[in-house]
Amino acid sequence: MEDPDILVDIEAKFTSRGRVMPPSNRKQAFLPKGATVLPNNQGTAPGIIWEPRPNLLLMTFPGVPREMEAMWRETSVPYLQDHGWVHETILSRMLRFWGISESAMAERVAEYLNLSNPTVAPYASHGEAKLRITAKGASTAAALSLIEPVEKAIKALMGTDCYGVDGDSLASVVGSLLSQRQQTLAVAESCTGGGLGHLLTTIAGSSAYFWGGIIAYDNSVKVNLLKVDAVVLEREGAVSAAVAEQMAQGAKDALGTDWALSITGIAGPEGGSSTKPVGLVYIGLATPAGERLSVRYEFAGFRGRDWVRELSAYSALDLLRRHLL
Amino acid sequence: MEDPDILVDIEAKFTSRGRVMPPSNRKQAFLPKGATVLPNNQGTAPGIIWEPRPNLLLMTFPGVPREMEAMWRETSVPYLQDHGWVHETILSRMLRFWGISESAMAERVAEYLNLSNPTVAPYASHGEAKLRITAKGASTAAALSLIEPVEKAIKALMGTDCYGVDGDSLASVVGSLLSQRQQTLAVAESCTGGGLGHLLTTIAGSSAYFWGGIIAYDNSVKVNLLKVDAVVLEREGAVSAAVAEQMAQGAKDALGTDWALSITGIAGPEGGSSTKPVGLVYIGLATPAGERLSVRYEFAGFRGRDWVRELSAYSALDLLRRHLL
Repeated sequence: MEDPDILVDIEAKFTSRGRVMPPSNRKQAFLPKGATVLPNNQGTAPGIIWEPRPNLLLMTFPGVPREMEAMWRETSVPYLQDHGWVHETILSRMLRFWGISESAMAERVAEYLNLSNPTVAPYASHGEAKLRITAKGASTAAALSLIEPVEKAIKALMGTDCYGVDGDSLASVVGSLLSQRQQTLAVAESCTGGGLGHLLTTIAGSSAYFWGGIIAYDNSVKVNLLKVDAVVLEREGAVSAAVAEQMAQGAKDALGTDWALSITGIAGPEGGSSTKPVGLVYIGLATPAGERLSVRYEFAGFRGRDWVRELSAYSALDLLRRHLL
Repeated sequence: MEDPDILVDIEAKFTSRGRVMPPSNRKQAFLPKGATVLPNNQGTAPGIIWEPRPNLLLMTFPGVPREMEAMWRETSVPYLQDHGWVHETILSRMLRFWGISESAMAERVAEYLNLSNPTVAPYASHGEAKLRITAKGASTAAALSLIEPVEKAIKALMGTDCYGVDGDSLASVVGSLLSQRQQTLAVAESCTGGGLGHLLTTIAGSSAYFWGGIIAYDNSVKVNLLKVDAVVLEREGAVSAAVAEQMAQGAKDALGTDWALSITGIAGPEGGSSTKPVGLVYIGLATPAGERLSVRYEFAGFRGRDWVRELSAYSALDLLRRHLL
């Protein structure tokens, strides 16, 4: 049967974007008799919650992962808890690491990998190493009390290589550190083309510390807007320690911030040489004290252009994080 | 059994990044007797190809999707074709659309959605509408001859809303159009924070037409580096047609390019008002003829910050694409 409230909600979502609801969306407002709506705050198609007979519970979700995940978190989990469907809690905490490989991390925490409750399991994705600590308990509090001592011990063992937990990102951690110090940041980007600024601004409220920057993809922009010395650029090449440091200084001066990060590298697939292979990246940093420094990275060029660019941006955030600590 | 060639390859991949192979990686060099290596050009762990008895073929892949996909494409598919495991070809072509919703697109091509060979199926992701045309045939050529007339008819029906096929992206299509004209592009980004430049530079060789830009997240950068009029900024607000147009002009002037795109908007979750809701975005364009223009967009703010930022960057590319056509 068609639910008039759902129909009104779907039509309102189209109207709010200045669109008319196409007739085909009308079928999203149909529900089985006796079912209730599982609201979708991120899209038009709602889900349903339906108990057609005792001990049988059906929930449906739209196919878009982002919408499904939000609906599960916001409505399904509280529903299951409130209606007695939850008898045991499995709780996980993810510890996040940068600047260390998954296998090197796993060797350092080897003594924890054979625990049974909590379990500790290593993961890796996008250059990041992770450890998932998972505990079973009668309640959230019981599970948490099993996780916490292990988390504390691993953090002590791993030091600053562990940058955060769960929903933390390098961008959010750097943002918190800058906010605490009331300091500001600019960027100068060559091979990442804006990817570092994009990562920094994924964080809501980042305008408090991130002012912006200059995307200097062409060498003319490095010289004209970042005031990189054309003679140095010609002699050392765009991918060099000297140019990375001048780019950072140029962004700091042009924007008037406390800190500036720069990235210049060879993302590939073309442009590499025997002395400057694909994957070679210099990251520069200009500090509030007036220092300029740079670090040389060699990322795995065979993993492709996206990989080199992504790791460059994360590594720049990590370099600043370690200087802020 | 340990395969010495694999071990040498894994060690070389670590050495090329200035690292020593951890002992735990050694197990990646073990193969079942009689199996051959399925090479992994993107990572260290290889797969295997093993026919332990007739009519039984096993292939293994590492769990990283990027590595698995490259291995499937580069080695597994040719192997299956060469060894008589392929008896029928299923071929798909994806048509890509921007500026039209999935449901509106589906209504315009309704007459094609009931075909049986090829089939035509609508999809949507990240604001993009897509149509997958899939044909079965005895060979690639036979399947292709079924796809082509349907593809041609749909393209004629949909006009410029169809921006490309298969691996095309808005960034690659805009890049091809700029390259054909030997013209250059700069960007000025506020709410996207570098995301538009990042998209443009996903394309290898984009340095031929993309020179860079200015990330003007803070208003001071809009005034100082993009020469936005401080009086206009104060009167109209940063998210306005006038500021979008001045930002585009400022980027074009500062970098000396033929075209410039600008983005200024309210990504949320905070910062919205009744007259300027979260999701309101102005995209500006400065053209080689000296024109300045802007377009107002209202994206679905309830879908979140990432959604608004992503659609802003893609919409900017689409605006330029339509002006280049």
